[in-house]
Amino acid sequence: MFKIRSLVTALALAGSASVVFAQALPTKAPAPADNPTTAEKVALGKMLYHDPRLSSSGTVSCASCHNTMLGGEDNRAGSVGVEGQVGGRSAPTVWNSAFNKVQFWDGRAASLEEQAAGPVTNPIEMGMKSWDDVVVRLKAIEGYQVAFTKAFGKNAISKDTATKAIAAYERTLITPNSPYDKYVKGNKSAMTKQQIRGMNKAVELGCTACHSGPAFNGPGVFQKFPVIDNGYFEAQYGFKDDKGLAEVTKKAADEHMWKVPTLRNIALTAPYFHNGSVKTLEEAVKLMAKLQVGQDLAKSDIADIVAFLDALTGEFPKQEMPVLPAGKVGTTFNK
Amino acid sequence: MFKIRSLVTALALAGSASVVFAQALPTKAPAPADNPTTAEKVALGKMLYHDPRLSSSGTVSCASCHNTMLGGEDNRAGSVGVEGQVGGRSAPTVWNSAFNKVQFWDGRAASLEEQAAGPVTNPIEMGMKSWDDVVVRLKAIEGYQVAFTKAFGKNAISKDTATKAIAAYERTLITPNSPYDKYVKGNKSAMTKQQIRGMNKAVELGCTACHSGPAFNGPGVFQKFPVIDNGYFEAQYGFKDDKGLAEVTKKAADEHMWKVPTLRNIALTAPYFHNGSVKTLEEAVKLMAKLQVGQDLAKSDIADIVAFLDALTGEFPKQEMPVLPAGKVGTTFNK
Repeated sequence: MFKIRSLVTALALAGSASVVFAQALPTKAPAPADNPTTAEKVALGKMLYHDPRLSSSGTVSCASCHNTMLGGEDNRAGSVGVEGQVGGRSAPTVWNSAFNKVQFWDGRAASLEEQAAGPVTNPIEMGMKSWDDVVVRLKAIEGYQVAFTKAFGKNAISKDTATKAIAAYERTLITPNSPYDKYVKGNKSAMTKQQIRGMNKAVELGCTACHSGPAFNGPGVFQKFPVIDNGYFEAQYGFKDDKGLAEVTKKAADEHMWKVPTLRNIALTAPYFHNGSVKTLEEAVKLMAKLQVGQDLAKSDIADIVAFLDALTGEFPKQEMPVLPAGKVGTTFNK
Repeated sequence: MFKIRSLVTALALAGSASVVFAQALPTKAPAPADNPTTAEKVALGKMLYHDPRLSSSGTVSCASCHNTMLGGEDNRAGSVGVEGQVGGRSAPTVWNSAFNKVQFWDGRAASLEEQAAGPVTNPIEMGMKSWDDVVVRLKAIEGYQVAFTKAFGKNAISKDTATKAIAAYERTLITPNSPYDKYVKGNKSAMTKQQIRGMNKAVELGCTACHSGPAFNGPGVFQKFPVIDNGYFEAQYGFKDDKGLAEVTKKAADEHMWKVPTLRNIALTAPYFHNGSVKTLEEAVKLMAKLQVGQDLAKSDIADIVAFLDALTGEFPKQEMPVLPAGKVGTTFNK
């Protein structure tokens, strides 16, 4: 029942999607009322985000898997955490994550702040035993005392402020001015003919039912994947081994429900899908057409849609490398 | 015999050391005739240095262990390479490594260029099977084709050019204007009284026999460590488990010979010694006095010398974060 309902919803929305679709990426992300973005928070958050001392081994930072020098992730199926452990889901991009309505593949975090807290104490990711341990470590680093004071006032080092600072930094990670954005703003030569064909094909197929709006991840929040059962592809890719949101909620209705991921910069973020089982964008497009809207695409259509997706690669802002504050205590990691 | 010769040499040099000692860090590093530093090489080298795709798993870059956001290393005893493997020696700092006469702890590389080639194909570090494989991977990334062409001309992607670019970038990683440098240049209030006391004590002890010159790593190149056998400390720290240069040359005369490491930024680079077995600078100073020049230092002397070493922490240059070129081929790493 649920499967059919989703499909029907997807198709019903498809007709009006082209209107929703044509939106350029904003250059600023909205911040929640309890965490307005300030330069001091962003500076602190940038340090924390890149600091491997937030992991038990001192080797894994947020940036290790969500690489701000690359497409915001690590081009791996499963990311590598402390002690060489490999995670079961492919790291989503941090770029434009400010425009996600929920965070993590299964959408279990309602905000960037909530998301930032998770990996730090996940035993197979950054492996810290608790946020209390993180706070002890940060407090021992004088430069962090200074930076937290600037951002939040005196004696403010806590899980709450650390995750707020990281979220504030992440809200600055926006990649505007893709060929698509230029096209939407009126420069009709910013996309090639093939890219325009691919865009129209994506609308026609109903991709835009889920992948609309400036970040191509709405108007909804969650969607089932795969919508259509297919034993052949399932045997190959094992998409259903992971139950998505239901792994958290344990509800049957949430089985294989996933946050609709942004399509921005998708050309940079292979491999694809929650388990990173698909190596190329061509294969990903083919599978989405088959499993979500029941279409067998011609090779030329796939090529056109991939060309369009290439047009969603934005400009990466210049960033100064953070100088991480030196710490004499709590920064020595033994074998 | 060798042990005694080293010690005598050390003591003989100590008298004249204060002259050699008083040199500020140059703000530019000399480059070899066959690899003059250019902006294009530095830009390319900075990308390569920070690119985890130079490792088999896509997770380990030069910067993972020689972190340019920290003190140029990872604050670990043994660094972590691909598949969670831990190395047997503590990563030396990349900052001011341009002023080392030889590279690696055992000095087995004569240049930064030669050094840069090593870790990439070391199975427990970056784990690439061969440089040919690295070249294939780089050639598949269009942005690297462009960057190599700018730096070296057309069709220039090779082990030789890649390591030259990395070395050119590393020659820019210099940290001038430490309190000590300001002091040497005439600002006599740049160091505290305790720091000046510690400096004089270091000269008096003969530390400067090996740790002189602008980077505190000359005038010689190699030195035996430990010079003086001490069963108590050996049992605790296992310094002699690793034979140093002799592990490479297999010569008895090279046993426990090590490159004299720079003291620049040493306050940031705990833990200490080739095996990273010593957690604090206080303990490192105590051990050096005991094992190299046979002195039992008073606690106050140790504190003074540590204060002086603090004065060797320089200013870290502002760096723009490299945007690593996107690659659709060869950048997908599976579990």
